[in-house]
This record gives sequence, C-alpha cells and structure tokens, in this order.
Amino acid sequence: MTKSIDFHWDLGSTNSYFALHLIKPVAARHNATVVPHPFNLGYVFRHHDYVLMDEPKAKIANRIADLQRWARRHKLPFRMPSRFPIKTAPALRGALAMRRFGKEWEYLEAIFAAYWERDDASVAELAGLRPVASALGVDPDRFLALSESAEVRQELIAETDTALARGVFGAPTFVVGDEIFWGKDRMDFIDEELARRG
Amino acid sequence: MTKSIDFHWDLGSTNSYFALHLIKPVAARHNATVVPHPFNLGYVFRHHDYVLMDEPKAKIANRIADLQRWARRHKLPFRMPSRFPIKTAPALRGALAMRRFGKEWEYLEAIFAAYWERDDASVAELAGLRPVASALGVDPDRFLALSESAEVRQELIAETDTALARGVFGAPTFVVGDEIFWGKDRMDFIDEELARRG
Repeated sequence: MTKSIDFHWDLGSTNSYFALHLIKPVAARHNATVVPHPFNLGYVFRHHDYVLMDEPKAKIANRIADLQRWARRHKLPFRMPSRFPIKTAPALRGALAMRRFGKEWEYLEAIFAAYWERDDASVAELAGLRPVASALGVDPDRFLALSESAEVRQELIAETDTALARGVFGAPTFVVGDEIFWGKDRMDFIDEELARRG
Repeated sequence: MTKSIDFHWDLGSTNSYFALHLIKPVAARHNATVVPHPFNLGYVFRHHDYVLMDEPKAKIANRIADLQRWARRHKLPFRMPSRFPIKTAPALRGALAMRRFGKEWEYLEAIFAAYWERDDASVAELAGLRPVASALGVDPDRFLALSESAEVRQELIAETDTALARGVFGAPTFVVGDEIFWGKDRMDFIDEELARRG
C-alpha cells in the first residue's frame, strides 16, 4: 500500500510555499503520495481567536532574514509579495475544482509561483485564475463555474472543518497517520515517520 | 582566528535546553567557540510588550509532540518540568559568577540538566545553586556572594541590554558576526554561516 502524506495548505501562507517544494523529495524517497488539502487559514485563526499581533521589529526582521536563508539554501526564487495578506477563498476553491480535472498539483504549483515568486496577486481573484486554467489545458469557463458552485463551496467548508477536527491550527500542516507536523521546518521528522512506517 | 558563536540563553526557555546540546557538534565541526550569554527573557518579553498568550489546545499539543520528537531524535532525556515557568534571575547571575571561576559552561550543563531532565526546579533558587557550585569544585559561599554582588547584578542587566540592542527577541538566539539565528531548529543555517566564513 502506498503511504500518503496529507498536506493542508493555504495560498496566503508563506511557509506553505516552501513546504510545497520541500515535501517533494521526502515523498519521493518513500514512494509516498502527497494529498493536498486546501483550507481557509483565516477561518481557522478566527476559530482559535488568534490575531496576528504586532510583532517586535526585531522579530519581523529576523523572519525576513530567515525566509531569505530558506530560499537561498533551496535555490527557490521566493520574494515577499507586495500585496499581503490576500483573501484566498477563490484560489482555494479553484484547487478543489482542479481536483475534478486531475490537475490539482499543477494548479498549486502555478498559483504559488505566481504569488510567491512573481509578486502576481491576480491569482487571488476569480478573473486571475482564468489564465491559470487555460495554461493547464482546462476550459476556463467550466473551471470557474465549478469553482463557484455550491458543491465546491461546501467542499471547502468541509475541508476546513476536517482540518480543524484533526488538530490543524496553522499552515502548512502535514499529517501522516495520526502524527501531525506543523511548519516547513519539520521535513526530517516527516521523513523519520515515513521510514518508521516501513 | 577562532570563529565564535554567541549563545543568548535563559534557563526558563525549553528551546535553550535543546540548543545547548545541539550547538556543540556544529561548533566542533568548525572549531568555533560557543560564548554563552545569560539574559533575562522575561524582561525582553516585557520590553516588547509580548505576552505569552492563551494558545489553542491543538497548538499546545503539537508543541509537546514536537519537543518529544526532538528529544527522541537527539537521544536527550528531556522532560517537561512540573514547575513552569520559573524565575531565573538567580540562576542567570550564577552563570556570570561562574564565568569568574572558569566554570560557566559546566554550570550551564548542570542547571539545564537539573531543570529540564530531572524536573528539579531547586536551581531556580539561590539555595539550590549551592550544591551545583560544590559539585563543580567552587566554594559555595564565595559563589553565592559573587552571584548576588552589585557587580554581577549590573552585568546581567548589561547582558540583557546588549542582547536587546543586537535584536534578540527570544531564546535561544545565536549570533555569528552580524547574522542572528533564533531557535533550536536553525543549526543548519549556523553551520552554513560558519562555513561561509571559511
């Protein structure tokens, strides 16, 4: 049986961008499948009464230096978007629509690259997702209609509720069996967990 | 010239416990010296108006699981102390006193092992530091008198102010040249920085 890694992500999460890339070699090493799950991180924060607080300047400066170190080490063309934060629900629903076209992973790579590499926040808007669909060979009208359908809207709510019920409180979160790994910086533990499961 | 790594620590910081152990192989690999700097983390938090907030239950559960993974991977006999948090100023001043006896590092290992491995919070009290001094072959009366001297009190304030001025906002913080590394989980970056400095 193939091992699987659930990957709970939100487009608005800087660390989900890194995780999207960093999980790939780990999964490949164990012949495991990464199963992406979009969820509404803002909703989860509100559920937990979490408010992004005013952080000390020194901490913000350190966070930026740290992200640049990650980008440099992994040779990723990361840049902090000029428009941040963004509303991500349309892009998240888009992923669920793309799942139906068998292009979910390619879609993830496309929207994360747009926002976190090219400073292109158009993918936060419904209209901006149209060219993404076209580039993946998916009819944009069908894609957008499905994205905005009651079925897909309900599915995003269900994905978010499932994440909450599992104990997800931030993004990225990876789940292997009943083990939960939060952050882009716990790949070694995921690797060990997969190894443990033979 | 020997390379050096400044290590800003507080006894009350869980991650300083791990960092104390994890920095050693990194320093050894580069023949670098670790220079410990006690600082008053509570003071720094107050300076930044940072309040340890009520975290979601899921996040607390994940933090504990994560600490256990670190302990298991690095084979460290870590256990969460039953008395937490503690006031650490006497133990921090003790480190500065021990610096004068040339036993600062051994003292650090002793107090961190007591509190974070044996659930022994006596090292938070002046009286509890007496047997630590004796075990290190230091006269406990001279040690305690020095710990509580105006000179050492002033030095802890100066260490804390220096840390703040450098941009330290949490513990552990490592500084190599002008590069600041926060946390127990950035050893690879410290390693790379030391390598870069040839």
